[in-house]
Amino acid sequence: MRVGIVGAGTVGGGVIDLLGGNAAVIEAGAGEHIEVAGVAVRDVAKARSRRGDSVPWVDDWRKLTSDPAVDVVLELMGGLDEAKACTLDAIANGKPVVTANKALLAEQGDEVFAAAKESGGTVRYEAAIAGAIPIVKVLREALAANRVHSIVGIVNGTCNHILTSMEKGAGTFAECLAEAQRLGYAEADPALDIDGTDSAHKIVLLGMIAMGTPLEFGKVPVMGISGIDTVDISFAEEMGYRIRLLAIAKRDEDRGVELMVHPTLLPADHLMAKVDSNMNAVSVVTDAAGEIVCQGAGAGALPTASAVVADLIEIARGGGADPWPQRNGATIVEAPEIRAHSFYLRMLVQDRPGVLAQVSGILAEAGISIGSVVQRESHESEPVNLVMILHRNRFGKVRESVRRIEALDIVQGEAKVLPVETLS
Amino acid sequence: MRVGIVGAGTVGGGVIDLLGGNAAVIEAGAGEHIEVAGVAVRDVAKARSRRGDSVPWVDDWRKLTSDPAVDVVLELMGGLDEAKACTLDAIANGKPVVTANKALLAEQGDEVFAAAKESGGTVRYEAAIAGAIPIVKVLREALAANRVHSIVGIVNGTCNHILTSMEKGAGTFAECLAEAQRLGYAEADPALDIDGTDSAHKIVLLGMIAMGTPLEFGKVPVMGISGIDTVDISFAEEMGYRIRLLAIAKRDEDRGVELMVHPTLLPADHLMAKVDSNMNAVSVVTDAAGEIVCQGAGAGALPTASAVVADLIEIARGGGADPWPQRNGATIVEAPEIRAHSFYLRMLVQDRPGVLAQVSGILAEAGISIGSVVQRESHESEPVNLVMILHRNRFGKVRESVRRIEALDIVQGEAKVLPVETLS
Repeated sequence: MRVGIVGAGTVGGGVIDLLGGNAAVIEAGAGEHIEVAGVAVRDVAKARSRRGDSVPWVDDWRKLTSDPAVDVVLELMGGLDEAKACTLDAIANGKPVVTANKALLAEQGDEVFAAAKESGGTVRYEAAIAGAIPIVKVLREALAANRVHSIVGIVNGTCNHILTSMEKGAGTFAECLAEAQRLGYAEADPALDIDGTDSAHKIVLLGMIAMGTPLEFGKVPVMGISGIDTVDISFAEEMGYRIRLLAIAKRDEDRGVELMVHPTLLPADHLMAKVDSNMNAVSVVTDAAGEIVCQGAGAGALPTASAVVADLIEIARGGGADPWPQRNGATIVEAPEIRAHSFYLRMLVQDRPGVLAQVSGILAEAGISIGSVVQRESHESEPVNLVMILHRNRFGKVRESVRRIEALDIVQGEAKVLPVETLS
Repeated sequence: MRVGIVGAGTVGGGVIDLLGGNAAVIEAGAGEHIEVAGVAVRDVAKARSRRGDSVPWVDDWRKLTSDPAVDVVLELMGGLDEAKACTLDAIANGKPVVTANKALLAEQGDEVFAAAKESGGTVRYEAAIAGAIPIVKVLREALAANRVHSIVGIVNGTCNHILTSMEKGAGTFAECLAEAQRLGYAEADPALDIDGTDSAHKIVLLGMIAMGTPLEFGKVPVMGISGIDTVDISFAEEMGYRIRLLAIAKRDEDRGVELMVHPTLLPADHLMAKVDSNMNAVSVVTDAAGEIVCQGAGAGALPTASAVVADLIEIARGGGADPWPQRNGATIVEAPEIRAHSFYLRMLVQDRPGVLAQVSGILAEAGISIGSVVQRESHESEPVNLVMILHRNRFGKVRESVRRIEALDIVQGEAKVLPVETLS
């Protein structure tokens, strides 16, 4: 089997290395030798200076997608427009495509898969979600006899590294971000990771596979992690929780699918709360199998290459495309209507008599009940943090009451509201 | 597709329920309806009284294996001789077989797979190892581009429930075993679970798949959990570890495959140390993907049925047999030659001057270095526990020195030696 690789960055480079280094293992799995027919890069001279002439470089992916000697195209350049053009061209030329491009699939996958379906083509994308964790395969094949109730993922290693560094006392959000950048766990421009967009791409894909229904990327309520303070992490810890950026898809039989990306409190003794550093993990709860949790490297050259080459081997073995739901789109539950098991609420208040009465009065009026309260002693007349856990409710109702609380003159600035998930 | 189910115990009953309850999901996955052609049980009257006439009962599995209208046979009766006869008969009649029978495959799989190979037959066995965790699929497909360095599994829920109950202070080994039996997490005769045999069956299968080499069941060094005292669990905790019954297969380039089932200390912050109650988990470390950990239900009617039906769906989709290594058997490293990262050593000693000098003297003579020592204050002249962590060495060498230590007149009874794994 001859493959054309488009892109020689982290993932493309990893695939070149893996196909070379583990050639015998891969050949045994695939039942045939897998040969690199060509690698398309923008700047051949630069690629050659970095990696020599170990692979045949070409300066245009069209030379691969149109080459009759190329059997499979690996789209590993990333981005949207050109990646889509390349993928569609490969499909039009009858070549199976393996991609790691979550943004393209989450935002414009309908178009890609419609083209593949029309021509009987194959698109596989295990590497697009959670790196080395074979979550597409687990959902599509291992759990094929199950109805999936929920998927909860830690699918962004950058965010998880920052949050767990803050947990260990390594500093503020800004300091831990800078440290993650220094270690190579965060990009120079980390915006798409930090703001939750990358996680939203992945949960749309996971939700579609698991629920068997199209889900629209633009409708996912998303909150990133830049607003998390170390004080939130220590209050959470005091109450038996840890904070993780979770990407969530839950089936609600009556209302559709609840989709969300949000910093969330998890019970400290749940396995997902113990996922450390830049690791990824996905918890799937189904009717028959119960809960399955998989943890692994969510990014990096070789872990991602491992998933790309696994897809290549499947194609060599005659395996078909990863599925894409085409009809009967589910309702995505609107953000204010999403329910959480409970909510963490933190606000800065004046330390004087009657504060708790006013805040709890507003909550009582809205019928929101309070599970627990923590207020630390104040130093002289400084404002203090008042933290509450509010019982199960809708996001919209809680936010509405919080806006009324923020308007009290004893409350300073904005309150912080984070959902609490128990994952059971 | 018409399936013949042999056995209607926990797993067989679960498969009947799942095929009925999730028929639509399963049909969508398989691309065709899966129908129960017949269920073979020893006592039809008894089966009928328990489950009514929802399925066509037959009193002999031969009526299914020889029926031209049966497309696939599910061997879910367990045991060795009759299960083998049934499996071989199904293969001889050209029917694919799905089995959950780890004992049969681990002890006599060579014969079963030789027959399947000769006739081009299919045997799949995802349900035989770790219930709902799709570890066969992960090793065979998702990690097909990797060289596996090690597999470490918590693959017996009974043992894990007992050890974690002891950890929580629920009582002694005997008390926690009785409690597990009461909860249905341990069989009336728990011998094969408690003594490690069940875990040994599973690690032989996992090791063969991961290392691609035949491994002989009878050569696995096995120790069960009945010798673990609560005091071992609390000393381990004090030193930052937890005790789990681990099934281990490690590739050693020079010496072959280290296989072992043994109660083992794990760092308390490793994910595998956090696997609680009757859950199973498997950690796989490879060259490209790094470490992948999967946790899920290792037993129970529906979780195991989920794996059986996933195999059925694969067969409907045209997937082939799970592989079985036929040639080039690897050397299994002999028990005394196995190395551990370090060792936990506990002995009951007289509380008098010179004890530590004598014990450490014997270890020093053998070139075994001591990492840490814990000795609690004694009440009057009672003997006290002396606990040490010994640095990396061979099992045989450590045991030899321990025998010399046990012979000292200041040491009472037998010392306890447990390996410590860091899983990295």
